[in-house]
Amino acid sequence: MTKTPDLSDLNASSALSALWAATSIAVIGATERPGAMGRLPIDYLQRYGFGGFIAPVNPKGGTILGLPAFASIGDVTEPIDLALIMVPAGSVAAAVRDCAAAGVKACIVMSSGFAETGPEGQAAQDELVAIARASGMRMVGPNCIGSVGGAGSVMATFSPVFSSESTPAPAGSIALVSQSGALGFGALSLAMERGVPIGIAVTTGNEADVTAAEVAACLAADEAVTGLLMYVESLDDLESLRLAVDHVPVAVLKAGRSEAGALAAASHTGALATQDKVVDAALKSLGIARVTDIDDLLDVGAVFASGARMTGRRVGILTTSGGSGILATDAIEAAGLELAQLAPETVRALEAIVPSYGNATNPVDVTAAVMTEPGMFERCLDVLADDVNVDAVVACFAVLVGDDVTRIANALQSLRQRTSMPVVVARTGASSLAPHAAALLAEARVPAYSTPERAVNALAALATSGERAAQITRKLGPVAGLPSPQASEDELKGLLAAAGLPIPESVLATTLEQATAAIDEVGGVAVCKAVVPGLLHKSDAG
Amino acid sequence: MTKTPDLSDLNASSALSALWAATSIAVIGATERPGAMGRLPIDYLQRYGFGGFIAPVNPKGGTILGLPAFASIGDVTEPIDLALIMVPAGSVAAAVRDCAAAGVKACIVMSSGFAETGPEGQAAQDELVAIARASGMRMVGPNCIGSVGGAGSVMATFSPVFSSESTPAPAGSIALVSQSGALGFGALSLAMERGVPIGIAVTTGNEADVTAAEVAACLAADEAVTGLLMYVESLDDLESLRLAVDHVPVAVLKAGRSEAGALAAASHTGALATQDKVVDAALKSLGIARVTDIDDLLDVGAVFASGARMTGRRVGILTTSGGSGILATDAIEAAGLELAQLAPETVRALEAIVPSYGNATNPVDVTAAVMTEPGMFERCLDVLADDVNVDAVVACFAVLVGDDVTRIANALQSLRQRTSMPVVVARTGASSLAPHAAALLAEARVPAYSTPERAVNALAALATSGERAAQITRKLGPVAGLPSPQASEDELKGLLAAAGLPIPESVLATTLEQATAAIDEVGGVAVCKAVVPGLLHKSDAG
Repeated sequence: MTKTPDLSDLNASSALSALWAATSIAVIGATERPGAMGRLPIDYLQRYGFGGFIAPVNPKGGTILGLPAFASIGDVTEPIDLALIMVPAGSVAAAVRDCAAAGVKACIVMSSGFAETGPEGQAAQDELVAIARASGMRMVGPNCIGSVGGAGSVMATFSPVFSSESTPAPAGSIALVSQSGALGFGALSLAMERGVPIGIAVTTGNEADVTAAEVAACLAADEAVTGLLMYVESLDDLESLRLAVDHVPVAVLKAGRSEAGALAAASHTGALATQDKVVDAALKSLGIARVTDIDDLLDVGAVFASGARMTGRRVGILTTSGGSGILATDAIEAAGLELAQLAPETVRALEAIVPSYGNATNPVDVTAAVMTEPGMFERCLDVLADDVNVDAVVACFAVLVGDDVTRIANALQSLRQRTSMPVVVARTGASSLAPHAAALLAEARVPAYSTPERAVNALAALATSGERAAQITRKLGPVAGLPSPQASEDELKGLLAAAGLPIPESVLATTLEQATAAIDEVGGVAVCKAVVPGLLHKSDAG
Repeated sequence: MTKTPDLSDLNASSALSALWAATSIAVIGATERPGAMGRLPIDYLQRYGFGGFIAPVNPKGGTILGLPAFASIGDVTEPIDLALIMVPAGSVAAAVRDCAAAGVKACIVMSSGFAETGPEGQAAQDELVAIARASGMRMVGPNCIGSVGGAGSVMATFSPVFSSESTPAPAGSIALVSQSGALGFGALSLAMERGVPIGIAVTTGNEADVTAAEVAACLAADEAVTGLLMYVESLDDLESLRLAVDHVPVAVLKAGRSEAGALAAASHTGALATQDKVVDAALKSLGIARVTDIDDLLDVGAVFASGARMTGRRVGILTTSGGSGILATDAIEAAGLELAQLAPETVRALEAIVPSYGNATNPVDVTAAVMTEPGMFERCLDVLADDVNVDAVVACFAVLVGDDVTRIANALQSLRQRTSMPVVVARTGASSLAPHAAALLAEARVPAYSTPERAVNALAALATSGERAAQITRKLGPVAGLPSPQASEDELKGLLAAAGLPIPESVLATTLEQATAAIDEVGGVAVCKAVVPGLLHKSDAG
């Protein structure tokens, strides 16, 4: 999972880095009119300190927000990295053609009214793709809300998130790619509120040309990016996803799990449905964590940003609340992690610290005694983390206040400094009880969650990524894409094997004798399955 | 689900209402020493304006925080409703005995060091129960953190939640019962932060005498309580739970789902494990919503508090973000709700409002066009809610700001005023984008969640409660308690039938002829199962 400075494998998509690294941006459909969408990107670029060249394009010329406006993109004298196309659907094709002719590297079509409206819109969208591809210009969208972030404060969006003076500039090493524009920028605003350091956000809309996965691969190759969060409605470019996950940990929220949801996705961004269990298997094979909602996605972002890496699945729990410890234990089993079996010497050391009505085995419960015996929690934390059977620690506390929390936060910070092991907090209590706790824990890079379940689920995502990192030394073959719904067992096995997964040996037998001979030959325990051409699932035969 | 003014069925446990309605409180182990637990309840009672009589009890006498202290509970001249026992484990039995002799109605043993420590502690705990039961005094705990709330500001706790001057008094019509003290008070503090109106919180600890379910039944009979949230580690008093759910909707977080979690629960409060699927079936049969973490529990509390009741499972979605609409659709299927099929006239009316690149069927997507066409969202809201096929509405918006949110909040308020249908919001965006939204939605009693999944899960809990309410006209037989792990199929069926569940007809056949005859007699589709004495599960036979 180390970054390769050589990005030659990304040549074809390197123009995409304009989405967060452009130094010159044109806005087609720019206007000064208050309330108009075509005003917002220019307003944001100026307000958030974009240091590059801004070219407002409007047939009327003149000046817009103090900048000279160009009647057409062809009139702009400087080379343009990124053009934002914000004109009505009927005028988009001409704008894309003009951008291509002007040598623009990448454009973002924000306008709606394409594949998401039906066959006519699909045809119009196909035309855009044809124009872009003929020129080599990359096209993001249509039907998206653009991108923001990067070192140069690219604010290529009309999202109202930045209309508030109080919204900070995106900052941090986590990148977010969202097929949905509103959800992507909404999630970004929540991340800012919660201290999840998302420094770049890109929305991809209908993905006529550029897919979220391709953007992810390009982002992952950027040295400044250490983790990726994705919201997607379609998922058919597994090769790009694998390029991404080879560099940084990736978590995905895939919408359209249900049949009704998949239909709604088709109406939203024209996404084609993929059977959900195929999505599950594909993500699993790539070592990509799948999450269930935006809260979970941001929870994982916080643990990715901590810089910790998880090298096993064994979790130690330290709690001041027995209830939190039990819930964490339940969550560990549900998430496919393991409750660490502590070494006898660890248990003995804990028994010397924990009161008799607490628990010196995992989950370790120091109880409310921590309120009257300062230092108890911190001592247990060190003992627990030093056990070689522990790959990660969840520290649970509910209603601690003031100095108790400060002391624990300091102990967690010391622990983080001497180990790369993940340490996360489940603090099931109001912020006001410990007003400084959030800042202290953030400084210590210790992610804090409101419930033990959320803390454990974030760790599980990190564990999945860690296993992928451990696999990467193996040479893996190319992944061609998702199989067709009619793929046979052999085709699916080939795909899984190509992704580096172990596949049980199998022999096709057409008579009982052949089957018996095959079992003798292969050895071990055998499972017999019927293969009937045209019958895909046993369940189809009733 | 109407309240019966006649509480005669609760006579045996009516002393329990002292936990939130006591007018005289004794604190055994009271002290003025700063930092000592025995100081805190007196401090809290004074600071939060408890209007009744406070009796500090300390062998040294004197005054404590300005109040005359009594050398023993026997010296207190006024009758005491509630005594808080906060002395070391070894002195608890004497304190319980003294309270019983003094005619105290109910005591809370906060001290730890009983069943959670092993056999010796269990014996000591049994002694406490024997003393209490011999006198008729009810005993809460041991190993708990007490109770707070009610009209008279009973603050019978040492929880540090109330050590901060900024913590408000508990207020609202939702009650929380938690077997875990720290988790219960932590959840209460989170509820306050999130605007979930919990007015009473009771923790029950080891439940040697009084169980959470018994407290729940007593709370549910209180006119001021409109919904119940519970955290429990053991669950064996189903009859009390049914009494509760006959009056108000109930949601339960049951810890110890996993084997390891159940073991940890035994160490925490001495709770005995119950097979988790039995818990699931029991809660389902009672119409009690089961949730997965404290966040979910509070989410459900918000929708219980809204006063809305759900009479069916058909949900209409209105969204400004296609992505949120798809996620809500997925969540509806996952939660066992139904995506409402809109009437043709509804779809026609929506088509006249929604832009062509949006969606006029469920999930209804007005898109970002709502930013430039004020009123669009509100008009769609009314059309959607007036469809007779819609039992609840989820309104999703991500990044709306300022006036847009104010207008929508006002429309939601109007809708809530003209219907009892639940209306909930999924607002996946930072508070700072619409600083007044939270207050406006709270005033409108429209619960707001950060993700569509959380909004839908809260509705699912409300639907479960609604179905129970609809059942209550049926006369139901008594539920004796959870079956033993060795219960036969017939015993389990009897229990489920007694709880009002439909049970498929079954016939025991010992020969093939008997089986064939039985199928003819019963009719329909038949399932054959082997019944072997001593063999409980097919899986046990390999």
